[in-house]
Amino acid sequence: MALLSSTPKADGFRMPGEFEPQSRVWMIWPQRPDVWRDGAQPGQQAFVDVATAIQKFTPVTMLTAADQLENARAQLPEPVQVLEMPSNDSWMRDSGPSFVKNGSGELRVVDWQFNAYGGLEEGLYEPWDDDDRIPERVSDYLKLDRYRAPITCEGGAIHVDGQGTLMTTRDCLLNPNRNPNMSLGEIEQALSDYLNLEKIIWLDCPMEEETDGHVDQLVAFVRPGEVMLTWTDDQKNDYYDIVHEAFEVLSNTKDARGRKLHIHKLYLPEPMFLTADEAAGLEQEGVMFPREAGMPIADCYINYLITNNGIIVPTFDQPAADNLALSTISEVFPRHKVVGVSSREIGIGGGLIHCITQQQPA
Amino acid sequence: MALLSSTPKADGFRMPGEFEPQSRVWMIWPQRPDVWRDGAQPGQQAFVDVATAIQKFTPVTMLTAADQLENARAQLPEPVQVLEMPSNDSWMRDSGPSFVKNGSGELRVVDWQFNAYGGLEEGLYEPWDDDDRIPERVSDYLKLDRYRAPITCEGGAIHVDGQGTLMTTRDCLLNPNRNPNMSLGEIEQALSDYLNLEKIIWLDCPMEEETDGHVDQLVAFVRPGEVMLTWTDDQKNDYYDIVHEAFEVLSNTKDARGRKLHIHKLYLPEPMFLTADEAAGLEQEGVMFPREAGMPIADCYINYLITNNGIIVPTFDQPAADNLALSTISEVFPRHKVVGVSSREIGIGGGLIHCITQQQPA
Repeated sequence: MALLSSTPKADGFRMPGEFEPQSRVWMIWPQRPDVWRDGAQPGQQAFVDVATAIQKFTPVTMLTAADQLENARAQLPEPVQVLEMPSNDSWMRDSGPSFVKNGSGELRVVDWQFNAYGGLEEGLYEPWDDDDRIPERVSDYLKLDRYRAPITCEGGAIHVDGQGTLMTTRDCLLNPNRNPNMSLGEIEQALSDYLNLEKIIWLDCPMEEETDGHVDQLVAFVRPGEVMLTWTDDQKNDYYDIVHEAFEVLSNTKDARGRKLHIHKLYLPEPMFLTADEAAGLEQEGVMFPREAGMPIADCYINYLITNNGIIVPTFDQPAADNLALSTISEVFPRHKVVGVSSREIGIGGGLIHCITQQQPA
Repeated sequence: MALLSSTPKADGFRMPGEFEPQSRVWMIWPQRPDVWRDGAQPGQQAFVDVATAIQKFTPVTMLTAADQLENARAQLPEPVQVLEMPSNDSWMRDSGPSFVKNGSGELRVVDWQFNAYGGLEEGLYEPWDDDDRIPERVSDYLKLDRYRAPITCEGGAIHVDGQGTLMTTRDCLLNPNRNPNMSLGEIEQALSDYLNLEKIIWLDCPMEEETDGHVDQLVAFVRPGEVMLTWTDDQKNDYYDIVHEAFEVLSNTKDARGRKLHIHKLYLPEPMFLTADEAAGLEQEGVMFPREAGMPIADCYINYLITNNGIIVPTFDQPAADNLALSTISEVFPRHKVVGVSSREIGIGGGLIHCITQQQPA
């Protein structure tokens, strides 16, 4: 399909909010033994659970390496589509396409430059060439035209309201390991052109973790004018300063349409850490980003996926915190069915449910 | 609007299943002091809670007597429409219209003959003339043509799958206090003609209660080919024989399309009884159906309402039983949001959430 030289904004295409209708959710089958412990078996089970939960609301396509096709097909429920496509890891949110849509409902693909979260020096793995080609291969499969964006970005670094507003973090997009040769103004221009924006809300998320502070572990749009913000009242929690500062920023900004944002708070679970047993199940020799016992595990509820009438929420076998999160989300989304999926095994890999999914708008 | 002399079946109209898309839910504001204790205040609060829960999924219209218009408007949330219309009590499921629909999406009204659950001798109240005229007045308001059915029936006595199958009970429709001069064959003919049926499943529900065993306290269609059945393993429960016999009947029948029915079990709460305090709040002098301390209160979860993506379920401040019911319903309806509403005050009046609501198909 065509590689377009114009921009989505010039052509009248915008990225819809995640809360808008979806026709499909894309995922990638996990298999790397340095990221997914015990030969990826527990991780694969968690991906099966997530895909099964999503499939009740929206069709799922699982991209799978050739040598895993049979295994994935055997483990996944029948309605989930299994499609052979090479990749380097399983973070479809980040390596996958961002879809944009015009007023007639036509879809196109935005193909970000991808360098495995920081390139050869600070990234998480190499090579990443197959991950970088996923948007092109998906657009070919779907017969959609494609824009190649002039900026290194991951889908987990951006949250849009579908009405001209973006939330993102300085820690990721302004990081020298992503776009060292672009000024703030050039980065804003690229985001505006490729997502069709009028307003960019910059947040800070200086967490010591793999993605350099992706916005999708911090805050998300509930609907235009409303956001859900990760929260803690515990000053010892690493997120404490981050979420309180984000609250200030979000309280004192307006969106592209001039609305003040209504902010809902979503309390974090207790922090979790990789056990010695879990670390021992990872093949660590010679890897770029070794994972050791005692390292934090990805642990926020905000990394849920909104998919049509469902919200698929990571849970952590912490009954009180899990139940509070599920009931908070259920109240904020009064018409959505909220489904928890136990996600520690995904957290060990470094992300959660939002990180392993990418929605295709209807 | 026109009163039609043909039948829905002859004209190609069928009653859709409750699980099909809805444009509106109708209710009637409660006020009778012999049915609704303490001047109907607690009952009105429960109706407000039900309307508020439904309104998140589907617009609600509350029919209200002239002298209650201001009170209802003040108590109900803004989006709920309040419409003046006379009635004798508040059971919109039973006194209200059944809507039928044709292939082009046109709606018409079926107007059952209504005698307040058994007429002057065995009924619950008189007069009932305003209740009997609700379908006519609703059809006039909506500008829909109307069929007057040649049979005494209430909406709570029938559950359809929208594909030619009806579940109903002998205790109600074959009761001499409803249709004394009609044979079984004539009653089946009337139901078939006015609901467009190919198959009627007769159940027995000999409960000592106000409605003479309405089917909507016993079983409901989940979707074509699947039913949810009230259940108990407690042999001392009055429902024990009833639900076990119903299970046998439902297991050994096929629907209009030749499918065997898949049966889900929905466990009952602990039986509840009117307290002396509650009974003292009812004005009982000279009423047809006095309510005394120790009388059973309506108490089944199956009397939920399906309304678009939501299921509004009566709960009874019985945490274990309530939670089991909500999670059973949530599993059987994987795409629906399940919302519990505390309903003892409605139960005191003799019905539950399904009894006080009537859906209008989209």
